[in-house]
Amino acid sequence: MRKIEHIGIAVANLDKSNELFCKLLGKQHFKTEIVEGESVETSFFQVGDAKIELLQATNADSPIAKYLDKKPEGVHHIAFDVEDIHAEVKRLKGEGFEILNETPKEGADNKLVVFLHPKSTNGVLVELCQEKV
Amino acid sequence: MRKIEHIGIAVANLDKSNELFCKLLGKQHFKTEIVEGESVETSFFQVGDAKIELLQATNADSPIAKYLDKKPEGVHHIAFDVEDIHAEVKRLKGEGFEILNETPKEGADNKLVVFLHPKSTNGVLVELCQEKV
Repeated sequence: MRKIEHIGIAVANLDKSNELFCKLLGKQHFKTEIVEGESVETSFFQVGDAKIELLQATNADSPIAKYLDKKPEGVHHIAFDVEDIHAEVKRLKGEGFEILNETPKEGADNKLVVFLHPKSTNGVLVELCQEKV
Repeated sequence: MRKIEHIGIAVANLDKSNELFCKLLGKQHFKTEIVEGESVETSFFQVGDAKIELLQATNADSPIAKYLDKKPEGVHHIAFDVEDIHAEVKRLKGEGFEILNETPKEGADNKLVVFLHPKSTNGVLVELCQEKV
């Protein structure tokens, strides 16, 4: 875990939340991106060397739609930058963490990502992410 | 907002969560600190140039005790490092954000802190913090 890569925030209306976070952070988002595999549209703000990632569902089957069916808008996950995602998955599995997808999948922002189940991480949905080369 | 200073995580049992985050992050916490004014015991882990702050209530009136009465353990707040907390409060108030304490108060880790109401920030409890000189 080299650094906090980003904090993912589930939002109902990306346009409204883009405006809100623009005012909060005092800067514009630097990109939006649709991640088809996760059925989300994302918007990224740079803050220091980390990012805020806003996440809006693109359809009712999206994990974000399901999340917002049960919970209010708010912090959805914390993503940590890792050097070797396969080695980290192996290490964390050995430590007893529950890995949601052992095979890394395509995330936003040119990343390979793996999620840990929040029940094994104090209620925090943890994402590991490694920059794709 | 210069960077993400830390992410605060509400936990029920600091000893257990210290062990868990030690395994997750692959390193020990670097300090614990009691913040009397907030009735919390904190534990800090360094990750890159940001921190993970675990928060355990020290009594039933603690904001963390009240939080955990209603919600499960998990992300409690996101703290942003600011250069001039008074100027940021003024700016954010002007943008329509609801400030919970306009007069900065003593936080953990040698900081002056101000909180924004989560209802004005997409459900995210936002902390501004400025290093005390």
